[in-house]
Amino acid sequence: MGGMFQSLPGFREFYPEDCAVRNRIFQTWREACARFAFQEFDGPALEPLELFTAKSGPEIVSQLFNFTDKGGREVALRPEMTPTLARLVGARAGSLKRPIRWFSIGENFRYEKQQKGRLRSFYQLNADILGEAGPSADAEIITLLIHVLQSFGLGESDFIIRLSDRNLWLCLLESLAVPEALYPEALSAIDKLEREDGPALIEKLSQAGIPNADKLYAAATELAAINDLADLKTFFGNSDSSVALERLEQWDALMTQIEAQGIASFVKVDLGIVRGLAYYTGFVFEAFQTVGKGRALAGGGRYDNLVEKLGGQPLPAVGFGMGDVTLRDLLELKDLVPEGAESPNAYLVIGGAEERPFALGIAAQLRSEGLRVEYGLKDAGFGKQFKAADHSGARFAVIIGQEEKAGGGAKVKDLQSGKETFVLSAEIADFIVKELP
Amino acid sequence: MGGMFQSLPGFREFYPEDCAVRNRIFQTWREACARFAFQEFDGPALEPLELFTAKSGPEIVSQLFNFTDKGGREVALRPEMTPTLARLVGARAGSLKRPIRWFSIGENFRYEKQQKGRLRSFYQLNADILGEAGPSADAEIITLLIHVLQSFGLGESDFIIRLSDRNLWLCLLESLAVPEALYPEALSAIDKLEREDGPALIEKLSQAGIPNADKLYAAATELAAINDLADLKTFFGNSDSSVALERLEQWDALMTQIEAQGIASFVKVDLGIVRGLAYYTGFVFEAFQTVGKGRALAGGGRYDNLVEKLGGQPLPAVGFGMGDVTLRDLLELKDLVPEGAESPNAYLVIGGAEERPFALGIAAQLRSEGLRVEYGLKDAGFGKQFKAADHSGARFAVIIGQEEKAGGGAKVKDLQSGKETFVLSAEIADFIVKELP
Repeated sequence: MGGMFQSLPGFREFYPEDCAVRNRIFQTWREACARFAFQEFDGPALEPLELFTAKSGPEIVSQLFNFTDKGGREVALRPEMTPTLARLVGARAGSLKRPIRWFSIGENFRYEKQQKGRLRSFYQLNADILGEAGPSADAEIITLLIHVLQSFGLGESDFIIRLSDRNLWLCLLESLAVPEALYPEALSAIDKLEREDGPALIEKLSQAGIPNADKLYAAATELAAINDLADLKTFFGNSDSSVALERLEQWDALMTQIEAQGIASFVKVDLGIVRGLAYYTGFVFEAFQTVGKGRALAGGGRYDNLVEKLGGQPLPAVGFGMGDVTLRDLLELKDLVPEGAESPNAYLVIGGAEERPFALGIAAQLRSEGLRVEYGLKDAGFGKQFKAADHSGARFAVIIGQEEKAGGGAKVKDLQSGKETFVLSAEIADFIVKELP
Repeated sequence: MGGMFQSLPGFREFYPEDCAVRNRIFQTWREACARFAFQEFDGPALEPLELFTAKSGPEIVSQLFNFTDKGGREVALRPEMTPTLARLVGARAGSLKRPIRWFSIGENFRYEKQQKGRLRSFYQLNADILGEAGPSADAEIITLLIHVLQSFGLGESDFIIRLSDRNLWLCLLESLAVPEALYPEALSAIDKLEREDGPALIEKLSQAGIPNADKLYAAATELAAINDLADLKTFFGNSDSSVALERLEQWDALMTQIEAQGIASFVKVDLGIVRGLAYYTGFVFEAFQTVGKGRALAGGGRYDNLVEKLGGQPLPAVGFGMGDVTLRDLLELKDLVPEGAESPNAYLVIGGAEERPFALGIAAQLRSEGLRVEYGLKDAGFGKQFKAADHSGARFAVIIGQEEKAGGGAKVKDLQSGKETFVLSAEIADFIVKELP
C-alpha cells in the first residue's frame, strides 16, 4: 500500500519480543545506577536549536532533525542529553545537594548517513557526577561504567576501558609551542592517528598552521602508543610543566581507587584515546568490546567548563554515555540478551458460556492478587484452549467446567508436572502463589 | 542568560523527584497490563506525516509538530500511537497470535494552544485488543481500564466509566433518515449537546443539510440523557432495526461480564458520550474523575475499520488511551502520588585518605550484592558525613575509621534505631540484607 506504511529509515519498531529486551536493558541500566546512588532525570526530546549549537557549534546542525515550529521557534530533536543536563543543573545549582549524581535514559536523534549500527534514533544511558573536581569522581564514574557492563554478564574477556588524559595531550601541545587557538585542530588530527597515514597527517597539521608538524607527529605517535602508567610517567618525567606533574598525581590517585574496587584488570592506560569532542578537560575513556568487531560501547570523560559555557555557574563534571545499539549487538554475540517478557501465571480454560461469568470472577480475583492471567475471549473446545494455554507460556491452566463450577472452584493443572488439583475459588490465588518459584 | 536556556513551552523537565514519580506511574501501568497478559510494544516517535493524515484527515496537520527532513521526507512527531499500532499489526497480521493484546507507553506530541493541563508533550498508556469482534474483548478492555486506575489506589468515589454506543447513535440517525454522508457532522454536533444551546445546534444541523434538524435534536437530547440499560431498551424497544436489537444483546453480554468481575458499580450507562473521533464503531467509553474538576482520565472504544483503512487487512479492534497529566493531577488531589526514588541502603562514613581504598573495597562488595551504596567523594569530618548520610535517606551508616580498618571491618549503624554493630567486611552485605524490610 505504498511508502506511507513504512517507518522512516533509521527508526526502529519494537514488537513485543524486542520491546521486552529493550525494557530489560533499561531496567539493568537503572538498577546498576541505583546501586551507585545515582538519581534519574529526564528532559524534553525537543529543544531549542541554540541549546545544541551553543555546545557544539553550527556544524552540528547538519546532523540534526531541526525545523521551525508553528510558533516560529528554531527547534531540534535532541542528539544527546548533556546540554539538557547542563541546563537543568544550572537552573537549580544553588539548591541541589552536591555532588550531583544523576543518570538518564533518553531517546536521541541524529540525522546520520544510513549504515550498519548507525541509527537515526537510539537510546542512551548517561551518568554524570557534577560538583566534584577530584579524581574520586572519575573513579566512581569509571567504576559505575564497568559495573553496568558487568550487570549484563559481560566480563574481562569481553570489554576493556581505555583510559587517557586530555590535559596531558594539552601539555604536549604546549611543550611544542602549538598556539592555543589551534588545539582543536591538532587534537582532531591526533584523534585520527590510528586511521590515517603519517605524511598525510603531517601535511594536514602544517596546513592548519601548526609549527613543527613533523615533530608534533613524532611526539604524538609516541604518546599515543603508551599503554602503561610507568611509561607515561617516564614520558612526562622531565617535563617542567606543573600541570603535567599534577596530572600524574591524579593518575596515581585514580588508579589506587580503581584497584581498591577490584576492577583494575578492566582498565588499560591508552593515550591513543583523545575523544574528538572539544569540551573534555581531564581524564577521558572509552569502553571497547574485545570480542567480535572492536567497537566502542561507551565513552566519556571530564568536562569541567561545559556547564558554565551553557550559561550556568562553573561546575566541574565527569560522565559517560552508552548507547543501546552496540550494547545489544554485543549481548547477542555473547548470547547474553536478557530474557524478554513474562508469561502469564495462569490461563483459564472455560467450559462455555454458562461458566464464563464464574470464570471471570476467578480472573478478577487472581489479578487483584497480582497474578498474570489470560483466557480465551470466545468460547472454544478444551483442546483449542489448552493449546492456547501452552502457547501463552502459562505455568498453570485453571479449568472451569460445569462440574468445577458446581463445586465452587476449579481444577488447577500444573502445566510443567501435569499434576491436577481441585481448589475452591477463593483459594486459587494462594495455591498458585505457593507453587510459583 | 536568555531564552536559549529555557525549555520549549509545553514541554516538561523531570528533575529526579518528578522523574521518579513518572517512572512509578509507568511501572504501575506496566504491572496492571501484565496482570491482563498484555504485551508491550513501541514505535518511532517520528513518523511519515501521511500516517497521521491517512487516519485523521489533513486537518490534523495544524496540531502536529511536522516538518520536511533533510532527505525531503514529510515527517511528524507522533500525536498518538494508534496509527503506528495499526501499521505494526498490519505488517505481521498473518503471523501474530490472535487476539492480539498489546499495550504501549509512549511520548506523544501535539502543537496545542497553551493552557492548564494541556501540554505539547505527554505520555500515554494505550491498551488494545485486536482480532476479536465480540463483547468479551470490550469487557476485557474496560476491566483493564478500571484495574489500571484501581492500581493507583483510586476507588469508586474517585472515578466512573461512562459507557455509550456509537452504533446505537447511528441507528438513531438512520431512523431519522439522516444521509450517511452527514453522519460525521451530525455526531460532531451531538457531541456538543452538553455545551451548546438548543437553537444554535438545530441551526448548525440544518445548515449542514440535515433534514428535520429539530426532530433529531429532540431525539438526541432524549437519548443522550439515558443512563440506565432498561431505559435504553425502552428507547430502542420499538425499533425495527435489526442492528439496534443486536446491539442491545451485546449490551447484555457486556454488562454480564462486567458484573462477573465485580466492577459494575464503576460503569454508568451514559449515551451522552459520543466521542468526537470519526472511526469508532461500537461501544465507546470515557473514564471521568468524580472528584475535583470532572475531567476525562481516559477514553476509548471499538474501531473495527481502522486497521484496514490504514492499509492492513480487516481486523476488529477495541482499546483505550490514558494520559499521564490528568492522572497525575488526580493522584495529587487524592494524595496518592506513588512514592519516588529509593534511598541508598548504606552510606559509607570514611575516616580519611588512609581508609578510603579499604572503604571502596567494601562499597564494591556491597554493590555486587545488589545494595545501593553512597559515600562522600572527598575526605570530610565525621559530622559532615553523618549529615550527608541522613540527607541521603540511607538506612545504614557504615563507619570505616582507623580502628575498624585495623579490625578488618566496619561499624554498621542502623540510622533508625541508632544501634551500632561491628561487622567483618565480608559479612557486611549479609548483615544489612537481613536487617532490611
